[in-house]
Amino acid sequence: MPKLSPEASRLLKKRIHAIIFEAETKEGKLFDVALVIVILLSVLTAIFESMYADGGFQTLFYSLEWFFTVVFLAEYILRIYSIERPSKYVLSFYGIIDLVSCLPTLLSVLIPGAQSLIVIRALRLLRIFRIFKLANYFSESMVLYDALMAARVKITVFLFSILIIVTLSGTAMHVVEGAENGFTNIPTSMYWAIVTLTTVGYGDLSPKTDLGRFLASVIMIMGYAIIAVPTGIITSELTRSKYQNISNQACPGCGSQGHGQDAAFCKNCGASLKTPKPPESN
Amino acid sequence: MPKLSPEASRLLKKRIHAIIFEAETKEGKLFDVALVIVILLSVLTAIFESMYADGGFQTLFYSLEWFFTVVFLAEYILRIYSIERPSKYVLSFYGIIDLVSCLPTLLSVLIPGAQSLIVIRALRLLRIFRIFKLANYFSESMVLYDALMAARVKITVFLFSILIIVTLSGTAMHVVEGAENGFTNIPTSMYWAIVTLTTVGYGDLSPKTDLGRFLASVIMIMGYAIIAVPTGIITSELTRSKYQNISNQACPGCGSQGHGQDAAFCKNCGASLKTPKPPESN
Amino acid sequence: MPKLSPEASRLLKKRIHAIIFEAETKEGKLFDVALVIVILLSVLTAIFESMYADGGFQTLFYSLEWFFTVVFLAEYILRIYSIERPSKYVLSFYGIIDLVSCLPTLLSVLIPGAQSLIVIRALRLLRIFRIFKLANYFSESMVLYDALMAARVKITVFLFSILIIVTLSGTAMHVVEGAENGFTNIPTSMYWAIVTLTTVGYGDLSPKTDLGRFLASVIMIMGYAIIAVPTGIITSELTRSKYQNISNQACPGCGSQGHGQDAAFCKNCGASLKTPKPPESN
Amino acid sequence: MPKLSPEASRLLKKRIHAIIFEAETKEGKLFDVALVIVILLSVLTAIFESMYADGGFQTLFYSLEWFFTVVFLAEYILRIYSIERPSKYVLSFYGIIDLVSCLPTLLSVLIPGAQSLIVIRALRLLRIFRIFKLANYFSESMVLYDALMAARVKITVFLFSILIIVTLSGTAMHVVEGAENGFTNIPTSMYWAIVTLTTVGYGDLSPKTDLGRFLASVIMIMGYAIIAVPTGIITSELTRSKYQNISNQACPGCGSQGHGQDAAFCKNCGASLKTPKPPESN
Repeated sequence: MPKLSPEASRLLKKRIHAIIFEAETKEGKLFDVALVIVILLSVLTAIFESMYADGGFQTLFYSLEWFFTVVFLAEYILRIYSIERPSKYVLSFYGIIDLVSCLPTLLSVLIPGAQSLIVIRALRLLRIFRIFKLANYFSESMVLYDALMAARVKITVFLFSILIIVTLSGTAMHVVEGAENGFTNIPTSMYWAIVTLTTVGYGDLSPKTDLGRFLASVIMIMGYAIIAVPTGIITSELTRSKYQNISNQACPGCGSQGHGQDAAFCKNCGASLKTPKPPESN
Repeated sequence: MPKLSPEASRLLKKRIHAIIFEAETKEGKLFDVALVIVILLSVLTAIFESMYADGGFQTLFYSLEWFFTVVFLAEYILRIYSIERPSKYVLSFYGIIDLVSCLPTLLSVLIPGAQSLIVIRALRLLRIFRIFKLANYFSESMVLYDALMAARVKITVFLFSILIIVTLSGTAMHVVEGAENGFTNIPTSMYWAIVTLTTVGYGDLSPKTDLGRFLASVIMIMGYAIIAVPTGIITSELTRSKYQNISNQACPGCGSQGHGQDAAFCKNCGASLKTPKPPESN
Repeated sequence: MPKLSPEASRLLKKRIHAIIFEAETKEGKLFDVALVIVILLSVLTAIFESMYADGGFQTLFYSLEWFFTVVFLAEYILRIYSIERPSKYVLSFYGIIDLVSCLPTLLSVLIPGAQSLIVIRALRLLRIFRIFKLANYFSESMVLYDALMAARVKITVFLFSILIIVTLSGTAMHVVEGAENGFTNIPTSMYWAIVTLTTVGYGDLSPKTDLGRFLASVIMIMGYAIIAVPTGIITSELTRSKYQNISNQACPGCGSQGHGQDAAFCKNCGASLKTPKPPESN
Repeated sequence: MPKLSPEASRLLKKRIHAIIFEAETKEGKLFDVALVIVILLSVLTAIFESMYADGGFQTLFYSLEWFFTVVFLAEYILRIYSIERPSKYVLSFYGIIDLVSCLPTLLSVLIPGAQSLIVIRALRLLRIFRIFKLANYFSESMVLYDALMAARVKITVFLFSILIIVTLSGTAMHVVEGAENGFTNIPTSMYWAIVTLTTVGYGDLSPKTDLGRFLASVIMIMGYAIIAVPTGIITSELTRSKYQNISNQACPGCGSQGHGQDAAFCKNCGASLKTPKPPESN
């Protein structure tokens, strides 16, 4: 690499940063689109490799995977090069995902036949989320994210209660049905309880005794009633975020209420609403 | 066809248009009802044909299908004849469906034994939606349609996230369970992941190893928690359309929108909004 | 039956009517409780009869069923005797259910071994709904009923769309998978489509080909997205019935809004709100 | 145990009570954390015992279980010792759970090989709920609990209707499909109906006849429509608790309730409501 003057280096860094990390400029957008395509192609390659592993395409898949690895590696190095504080990026969630995206092929040299590296290759898909985050028109996804975050504690309490119900149901079914009907131990029975409560119902394990079927019926109807809970949580959060933006401020002119958060004038009498509002807590 | 005077031809066109394209007149309603019956009968014929393909009814089914084809073809020609701009109709969604409705039998002469034409015959059912659109008393369906349209972006983001979860889950299960338990390749494992996440759970593929069952349990509980998301989206849209009462009126002063139904003054500039509003239909 | 004086007969009728048709008096309540117990016992008898059909309990079950028949027949005759206009009762929904409740055993004399009469015996359960309707403390069920009724048209439109999706999916899967994978004809494939869309997923029929699995995945994800629709409909109806009772009336004293429908005085300044309200349409 | 002076005994009791029953002090919190860990370890022991019953770990599991039993027994005795009114605690829900937690191992001495005691050991998990109740930061769970309680009657009515539908469906399917397709008796068919209505769909029982499949389709679509009901109930309760903001304050003038949180005057009689309200916790 030829030595650059500090000024030229600074400008180059800034330019690369704008292209790689931002999505405002035309080049930035082009880079994002190209990256999404390369990511999707690399995952498609992994998928096809799993389908035609025995065919004569081994060399093709191998070459493609090396090509993607070089591309991701080059991108990773450019990201570190162009950013102000590389350490912060390297240790961030997406920094780790970016590094991991380059590893499978490199590791496959060291550990031959490591089939499980295919999972790491699929992890590249997570990188697409960052690109969508940059593209502002996907701001709708934030509403979903906010609703999920707001309901975080409730969902945790809910999942925890589910876990206790699953343990109790699983233990009871292990005792009632026993190993001869496939409920060989408590973890297996807990797996059955999860399959049942979530209404998936594979049927690989199913109660055979009368008491077991009765117990399963109770668990199913319970599951039917509590499936409503997470839905209720998310829905009420999503609904709340819609209603909340009605301010409680009364018009100083006519005393009317129900103005939007962004209202500067009273909707009834047209008087100015510019009394200072206290900062909202939520 | 005898030559018609231009005036008589214009009147005939107008009359046919009123009968075929509109639902206000008595004849128009009768035509719609007759068309719905013919469509349902033609689909029922296709269904019965699939059931008694080996019986001695081949000639009957064949004759019936030719009858329906002639009816739909006659209707298609009349539609083109009576409409002002035929090209616009021909290239519209329903124009293509109408044309496609006539094709199966005609094509079966060219391609003998083309069993797959039965799908095209079922597509005739889509034509019923147009008739319902005409019938105003089905205006309720528009509320559903509007809610789905308003939630369009959110549902897309949601489905896209599901797709990434499915790919990651499918790859992981392919590695964990392997071909010997039926997870032969990534697409098959992704099919399993979709069957599981949507809580369908056929059981044609199900995890057999302990690690696979644990992973499947996590995926199922995750699916149980996120099944709440589309429900929350639709519900909050349906609820919003009832409560928000946000008028579409733009302020004559500053052009801003989003005023409440009851607003008399613009919330941004305080200008009067008292331009007469048309009476609302719903 | 000894001849009664007209006056005594009228009083007896009135008394029986109060006991059988009403639930205000102590006797009326006792009658209802006794009737619920007899109904449940008669259905339990039918259930046990199906379980121990081969045991030596035939005579017991036969005697019990005759006992219940006599009880229901006596009750039916008393209902006709005590009501003002018997014809109206006889032809009403519950009148027919009451008559049908007596029939199975009577019919079994004429048609020996008619196993299907057991369904009619289970229909007796429907009679319990009337008793709950009388008991006013079950008024909560009316909220559910009202919500379902209000969403009647939307649910019909929804179910109709489901039916069209089911027909199209079923036809496509019949062509793609074919009879060799169990999709023998269109009705069978439609049954599969319903099992899939409703996320029941028995697994008695499941796609085997790659194209079939892809198509099934699309149908499942579609089903996952549209399962939200009926939930959204019911929820928004239930929520609406809660919010509606906020009046739009502004206080004549201070102009404030948001008073409950039942408010007689302004909650801000205490002024009377007794300006005549227009009759509400809904 | 050496004799304590009454004063020392009183102080000791108070101190033990603060540690065991409360979570304010540092020792109280430590005790709770330790108890959660012991409970989880004891349940994990039961789970591992079910997995490696045949291995050489019998003595280890036996010793561990005795250790946990002694710990729980000691805790139970301390709870009785330190509380004011022991009888009230002993007969309370958690008092019985605490006692039951000590029993399995003690009983296993009397009844050797009583495998079903493993269920009682899993019941120990219920004790965790009490500890969460103490920890105030889990107050979110109360919102869920309140919503479930508020919807108590509606859910009961709903479950009762489900039970009637299940009985009718089960009886009908028993008659239509019969014993040769697995619907051997009405309880088995009711089990199938519950598996179907809750959309679990194991597939261990599934309709084989055309009429049975049609009937099953109707039941499934019905189930699809009514799955919306519990969701709607919970959601509208959760949403209501956010919006309704109905104060529990009774009017000092007329005793009426149901005033809004912001009401300054009674909506019935116009009397002032300005009695000081306690600060709200949530």
